[in-house]
Formats: sequence, structure tokens, C-alpha cells
Amino acid sequence: MLGLMQEFPLLVTRLLDHAARWHGDTEIVSRSVEGPIHRTSYAEIDRRSRALASAVSNRLGIGMGSIAATMAWNTWRHLEIWYGVMGLGGIVHTLNPRLFADQLVYIVNHAEDGWVFTDLSFVPLFEKLQDRLPKVKGFVVITDRQHMPAETSLRNPVCYEELIASGDPGFAWPEFDENTACGMCYTSGTTGNPKGVVYSHRSNVLHGMMCCLSDALGLSSRDTIMPVVPMFHANAWSLAFSSLISGARLVLPGPKLDGASVYELLDRERVTFTAAVPTVWMMLLKHLEQNPALRLPALERVAIGGSACPEAIMKAFVENYGTDVIHAWGMTEMSPIGSLGVKSGRTSALPDGEWWKIKLKQGRAPFLVDMKITDDDNRALPHDGRTFGRLKVKGPAVARAYFKGEGAAAFDADGWFDTGDVATIDPYGYMNITDRSKDVIKSGGEWISSIDLENVAMACPGVQEAAAIGLPHLKWDERPLLVVVRKEGATVSKQQVLTHMEGKVAKWWLPDDVAFVDDIPHTATGKISKLTLRERFKDYRFPSA
Amino acid sequence: MLGLMQEFPLLVTRLLDHAARWHGDTEIVSRSVEGPIHRTSYAEIDRRSRALASAVSNRLGIGMGSIAATMAWNTWRHLEIWYGVMGLGGIVHTLNPRLFADQLVYIVNHAEDGWVFTDLSFVPLFEKLQDRLPKVKGFVVITDRQHMPAETSLRNPVCYEELIASGDPGFAWPEFDENTACGMCYTSGTTGNPKGVVYSHRSNVLHGMMCCLSDALGLSSRDTIMPVVPMFHANAWSLAFSSLISGARLVLPGPKLDGASVYELLDRERVTFTAAVPTVWMMLLKHLEQNPALRLPALERVAIGGSACPEAIMKAFVENYGTDVIHAWGMTEMSPIGSLGVKSGRTSALPDGEWWKIKLKQGRAPFLVDMKITDDDNRALPHDGRTFGRLKVKGPAVARAYFKGEGAAAFDADGWFDTGDVATIDPYGYMNITDRSKDVIKSGGEWISSIDLENVAMACPGVQEAAAIGLPHLKWDERPLLVVVRKEGATVSKQQVLTHMEGKVAKWWLPDDVAFVDDIPHTATGKISKLTLRERFKDYRFPSA
Repeated sequence: MLGLMQEFPLLVTRLLDHAARWHGDTEIVSRSVEGPIHRTSYAEIDRRSRALASAVSNRLGIGMGSIAATMAWNTWRHLEIWYGVMGLGGIVHTLNPRLFADQLVYIVNHAEDGWVFTDLSFVPLFEKLQDRLPKVKGFVVITDRQHMPAETSLRNPVCYEELIASGDPGFAWPEFDENTACGMCYTSGTTGNPKGVVYSHRSNVLHGMMCCLSDALGLSSRDTIMPVVPMFHANAWSLAFSSLISGARLVLPGPKLDGASVYELLDRERVTFTAAVPTVWMMLLKHLEQNPALRLPALERVAIGGSACPEAIMKAFVENYGTDVIHAWGMTEMSPIGSLGVKSGRTSALPDGEWWKIKLKQGRAPFLVDMKITDDDNRALPHDGRTFGRLKVKGPAVARAYFKGEGAAAFDADGWFDTGDVATIDPYGYMNITDRSKDVIKSGGEWISSIDLENVAMACPGVQEAAAIGLPHLKWDERPLLVVVRKEGATVSKQQVLTHMEGKVAKWWLPDDVAFVDDIPHTATGKISKLTLRERFKDYRFPSA
Repeated sequence: MLGLMQEFPLLVTRLLDHAARWHGDTEIVSRSVEGPIHRTSYAEIDRRSRALASAVSNRLGIGMGSIAATMAWNTWRHLEIWYGVMGLGGIVHTLNPRLFADQLVYIVNHAEDGWVFTDLSFVPLFEKLQDRLPKVKGFVVITDRQHMPAETSLRNPVCYEELIASGDPGFAWPEFDENTACGMCYTSGTTGNPKGVVYSHRSNVLHGMMCCLSDALGLSSRDTIMPVVPMFHANAWSLAFSSLISGARLVLPGPKLDGASVYELLDRERVTFTAAVPTVWMMLLKHLEQNPALRLPALERVAIGGSACPEAIMKAFVENYGTDVIHAWGMTEMSPIGSLGVKSGRTSALPDGEWWKIKLKQGRAPFLVDMKITDDDNRALPHDGRTFGRLKVKGPAVARAYFKGEGAAAFDADGWFDTGDVATIDPYGYMNITDRSKDVIKSGGEWISSIDLENVAMACPGVQEAAAIGLPHLKWDERPLLVVVRKEGATVSKQQVLTHMEGKVAKWWLPDDVAFVDDIPHTATGKISKLTLRERFKDYRFPSA
């Protein structure tokens, strides 16, 4: 027997309807790509998104199933493109301008993007690349007539504001299946080609609601939200959706993400909630240190994710500026929020020092994220805060496949997605990532965290950088080798490093050997390339093996 | 093109999974029907709900589509029955013990309830009524063996705790369509027979999430929630779902809803959030007045709904006890939350006096409730706080039909449900109910609120009670007649009443006549019966008509 409740597909246009109807006058402030601060409202965004939808549908042939790319900063126009294209049943594929040209070409061709919406900033890039993008029908330049480049070799260049002007602001959104695709974002895998994650209307609406739960980010119409995290980074951490659900005032930082520019908006626009990767906050804190008179009285909380947040950043916000920090973890495949370091009923009762230890972890699963750690045989491991296992997740906003069926090994038969991370979960439910599963060192059936070894070794005087890798061992399967770059002029020895590490990790975790090298290889994004390192040491044999 | 996100049906068992996995040790405190305070946890509720599901499935034949009734107070066992039966794909039909016997018999027979779960308190009632309930297969008495009535004439009496003991606490929940029915609640219509509202898993999960939004009730795991509103009243205002989504500590008041008992639990269990109808709070406040030393330091907020909350109650909580009040409005047909009087970004900026005027209204629509006011021709009316129209609502937790297709006139072709209320919506989005649509007086195409006329007339010295009804008028279609009961010994005249009203309502709203009577008819629930009144005055003619 079915319930007798209304059919009400969870389409992202519902979010815009809600914001426009109940928070229509609420302001959206953007730093424009052209320079000046621009101010609009949800009611106006609603009209312009409808006008855009009608224009791209009539003039560019964008509709159900069309894939349109954007390469754009966070501005009101980028928001209109999301809602305008998604509202038609089209798919917005966000391109990351920080990618290498070859990756970009691969991604645009792989996704089979039709039209590309590009900020002025990226016109030269596409002029150079377009010959390698044969399927792209043309380029919409996200600006007004006045700022359109006088001459451009771009294929079929269209002026964004002229498109809007030709559209119908009263356009009625079509209704369709809530499982329809609406967004696409490629993961930047450390190995192999990037893979496409395809969001649905349903997943984005549910995920956006999840973020507004009081026990998650707790976003409300009383907030002024500044997503510094770009809309091309992991679904903008859902903020292009959750802000509309909450009807919050929205501040979009455009192309300027340096400390001074971010501070200027946080301060002048009285932002209460903001979110970005640690690098952004390092730049902001540096700017604040250099200008000791500056304060952040309006800023209540900062979500920090994308990579583990150093304690110094968290402490600086909390202790120097009275701003709470929410440590967030997620993945493009998770829409992207997976866990949040917010207090629960039980951790609220802990003394401050205890809470800080937990706050540094990756956080706990909000409702609609299922999470478990397992051994290699998929047996669930205990939540004791010590045992670590493969971190697997499930939920309505978690991928069940990549675009075109690639990378299928990450998804198991029961629908769990293997994050590729190794983690512990403590009795309070807070998860802590200890390693990537391909880097964890498997010694006698037990796991050793390469990251933990590195962190301890890096604190040893004379050590510039350290990397731990597992290498084959007759008796133990694998044992850790520590690869160390000495600080200039330092003479630190193997024994000194090992003595330093003793007592800081379990005895059986201590590396079997330390190899001193001149440099450690890194990936394009600055992480240690364990793959290259393992390749370099493939013929190495332990003294004891 | 469909998204590539996981299938994850929104079943209510997900809520229990979440609460048991991440808040397993969190306490559920109940005042038992047998007397003592009982303490359990989400992990234990999870095991017992599974055991119950396996037992009722094996022994009572309850499964997909079975309708099982409960007549029970808010206790941990009632919660287990909800999750156990719903988790099987069965439907829990909550019976209101305050109904007249004839209504109860009608409802049980109309719903075709199979098994009835009854608290000890209601065993005598069912012993008396069961011969009129031929389709009921038997009765599960919600207690342990020790408290089972020694002799009972109940058909097939089963002891609840014996059922649980015979079940499998590791029972695996089946998966099925999220649109499957899971709950049923009859509306107590003022006219005609009660009509059944049928909730689905999807509607309850979405509605529960909606209640946990920071901009709605903002429930979190840091809360201790006491639903004083009974689980048989309008889906328990979703609290049997939203509490589990938030993982909050839960306090269930059992059968004792008097001021002293409610205070005892609020105080001893340090409740932070509670919800009930105004009557409950009047009893509590009276108890507090009689015991001036009593305070409520833990209690942060009280949701008050079910009928309009008098200003005196709201002021008493806020000013005397420092507890915020959330004015809520809803309907059984809306799962039931329709609007909440919480501050928005814009109303946060208002001075206190301005905010209080808005706080007394019924509140604003949370995300997932669409709301509009229309004229009789379904044209949307402005949100100016003055124009009033028929209040219509839409959303995934709003009914699209009643059980067995009754009352179809309330649902229009576009899926809007006509609430039967007449309301204004102000520019901030706050809705205020001014009348029932069948009672509003339609004069020359404009509407006059009968309730406003009554409120103004009741303040006139010498007036005991007043009711305004619209009666036919040649020129204006309808004009108001004010029916008045004088206070004992009072001699107030028609002219005195009209003079009192002048300036307090628009001139054209003033009643065309005042009729003095000895009594005004009331419904069973104490409301003025306009239907009977119109019938009494059906031959009346206005002096001027």
C-alpha cells in the first residue's frame, strides 16, 4: 500500500522557488570578474535564471540531458547558470581552471561538453585549447556587451548578458524525474585519468538539506554565507544549494581569494559562515597577523576541509578571533560532505582539552551518510578509536558509479563506496583518517599508518621531509622503510631518527630501515608521490629480510 | 540522463539505523504506564524494534500493507511499535483515546485495522467496544507478563513483552519503495465523518529532516526533547522521527500530562526542547505560579501549536522563565508542520516590539512547504499582511488524497491542498490565520473575518460571548450578523456594541445587526458551531436588506 502524500520531485529549482518566494529581497553580493562589487537578490536571480533557461533552450539548444561546462569563479552569474541549465534538465559540468591543459582537454572531451560558459579570465585559455575540443559547439562569455573581448577567435562566441536579455523571465520550469542528472564534477585521481561524478537533482536537494541540519552545518536565513570554496571544487561543498534552502544572505568572492580580498568581504559584508581549504585560511591568517588591528566580530564559524586542517589554523581562529572551526571531510564522490567535526550531545559534556583532541579528527557522519570501517575481507571493525580499516560510505548523495562505468572496483555489491582512505572511528562516532589504503603498510596482518610514521619522523631534529612506504618482507609480508631528506647541513643518522621515534609509535611500527635521499618526489598538487617512491625502491631489500 | 548516485530509499528504519549507530548510548527516558520511570537507549530500541518486527511478522501475520492500530501514550514501547511495524512495510494507525466511542468504532472499522496495540489504560474500553469491531483480529497489551490483566475478555490477548522476547533482535529490515505507506491518522473534521491521512516513509523522513533544519525547529543531538504532544496527535508533530534524525536524548511523558508531572520531567531530565498544545502549557504555567520557587533553567524552547497560542502564555515563558516560544501551525494533512514562528534573517533585525507582533502570527513556511493565499478564482493574492485569502499548501509531506478517496474537493488539479483556512501573509513571509474559509463573510466580493469581529466584540463591556456569521444580503451577497450572549445582569445594547467596535475594524466590516441570544452552540471540542448557528438564523432577514 502506498502513502497518499503529494508527488513532489526533489528538483533543484524547488530551492530557487523557496528562496525567491520567502527570501526574495535577501541580498546576493558578488565580487565581479570585471572588478566592482555587484548586488542582487534571490528574486532577481530567480527571474534571470528563468530568462537564461529560456534563452539557452531556444538559441543554444540546451535541454534535457545536455552537458554544458562552466569555467567560472563564484559569482551571481555562475549561480544563474547552475539553476538555469539544471532547471531545464541539463547537466552543469564545472571545470577547474587549475588543471593542466592536457587534463582539461581530456575532461571536456570525455564528458562530451556541448556549450562552454567561461569567465572573461579564461577566454585566452580556450582560444588556445579550442582546436583540441572538437565537440564543443561554442562559448558563452560570462560578461556584458561592454566587457566582451573586441576580437576573439573563440568558436561561436555569445555574450552572457545578451542571452539573458533575450530570454523570458517568466519561463516555467519543466517537471521531471528527481533522479535526473544535474551536475558533473571530475575527481583528480592521483593515478589514472580523472573520473566523472554525476549528481542528480535528488542527491543535491537531500545533501543540501543535510547541510542545513542543526547537527551538521546548521545554516539558516540568519546567516550570511561566503563560499570561498569554488563552485568548481567538489560541488562547492553544496553551498550553492544549501544557501538557498536556508535563504541565507550570500557573499560570492569572485576571482580574488587572497587574504586581503577575503578579509575585506568577510568584514564589510558581516559574513557569519564561510568555507574553504586550509590554504585560503593560511593566507587570511597571515594577512590578519600582518594587520593586528583587524578583527572578525561577525564571523561565527568557518568550515575547513579539502585536506586535514593543521591545529595551528584551528587554534588561531578559535583563540585569536573567537570564530569556531568545523573540521569537514568529504569527497567529490560524496557531494561532497562525509563528516563534520561538530559537537554532539555526548561530546558537549567533555572538558575542553578532550574536545580539542576530537575536534582535530575528521568528524562524525551527519544523517544520510552511512559510514563503516572494514578489514580486507569486508568485516566491520569496532569503533574504538584505535582499530583502523578501510573507510566505506553509503548514502543518497554518494556515487554508485563513475561516468561511463569507469573505476567500478570502488563500488561493492551492497552499494558501499570504498573511499580509498584508512580510518579509525572512536566511541563517540568521530572518524579520523590515518592513511590512504594504497599507502598503508601491512605487517603480519596488522596495519601501520604511513602518515603517522611520517608525522613523527618529521618532528625529529635535522629531518627536512620524511616518507614511509611498505616494502616486501619475507616474514611480515611488508615492513616500513622510512625515506628521509636531511635539512641542509644536518647530519642526523638512522639511529637518531629511530631513537626519536621510539615511544611515539608502537614498537612494531618502527621502520626496519631509514634511507637518506636528496629529494622526495611529489605530485602536481604537492602531495608525496608514494607511487614513484615505491618504484624507486623496488629493488631495495631490508637488511633483516 | 540519470544521475549516478546511490539508490537509498528514504525508509523510516534509516532513522533508527542512524540513531542506533551514531547515538547508540543516548538515553530514552519514559514515564511508564505502569508507573516507574524507565530508561533505555537508541541501541536497545533498535534491537527491540527488530525483535518486535520478527515476532509480529511470524506470530501475528503483520507485514507489507498490514494496518495495525495503537492506542497508547508516549513511551519507549510505543516508539518500538512504530518502528517495528513500519519497518516491515506495515502501517501504524494511531487512535486518539479522547474520541467518542462512536467515532472510535467508525475509525477502526473504516481503516480496517487488523491488530490493535493497546496500553493497559485502555483495556476496559476495548473490552466494551470489541464486539463492534469485527475486523480486529486481536489485541496486544503493551505491558509485561506481571502487569497483564489476570482476566480479560479481550479477543486474542497477547502480552507485548512476551512478543518481544520471542523475536529476533538481529532481524534485518526489508527494503522497499520509499512511497510505501507507514502511518495513518484520522482528522477530526467539524463536519462529516473523520477522514484518514496516510503518511509514507518518504514523507515522514523528509518531514523529519525539515524539522531538524536550523531554520525550522533546529533539533540536534545536543537537545533533550520531550514530546508532550501525544503520538496519536497529528503524527506527533514528527518528533518520533525528527528526534532520531537528530540523535537527541528523548523524554517521553507517558500518561501523565498534568502540570506537576510535566514539570517534574522537564526539570529532572533537563529537557531543552518540548512541544504541545496551549492547554498543556496553561496547566504547567498554573503549576509554576502556584510554586513560585520553581524555575526551568535547562528549557531553551517550547513549540506551541494545535490552536492559536494566547499571548499571555508566550509572554509568561519568555519573560518569566527565559524560555523561547515557537508558535507552530500545521494540520494532520501536513504531517503536520506547516509554518513556524522563528526569526528569519530579516526579522532578526526588527526591534523587539515589532517582532512580538509577528511572533503571535502562525509563522513562516520552512523549506519543503509551499504556501499561497488565493481568492475564490484561485488567483494568488499579495503578501502584504492585510489581504486575506484561502490558504493552500503543497509539499512532499502534504496529503494528495484522503484514505478511500473521500473529501476529494480539498485537492485541486495542480496538487494544492486547500487548508480550509483563510489567512494573510506579511511581507516577511509570516502567515496569520484570520478565519476558516467556510466562516468568512463575503461582502461585495471582499472578505470579512468573522474571528476578528468576534475578538473585537468580546472586548465590549457586558458581552459574554459573541459569534459573527454571514447571512444572505440582496445587494452585498452576504453581510455580518453578530450574535451576542450578554454577561449575567448586563444590559448592553446593539448600539453600544457597534459603537465599541467602530474604529477597531474597517467601517464596512461593522455588523448590519446584532442579535442577543441566551446561548451560542458549541462543538464537542468547545469551538463555536457556526454551522448550527447559521441553521438557527436561516430565516433571519437584515433590516436593510
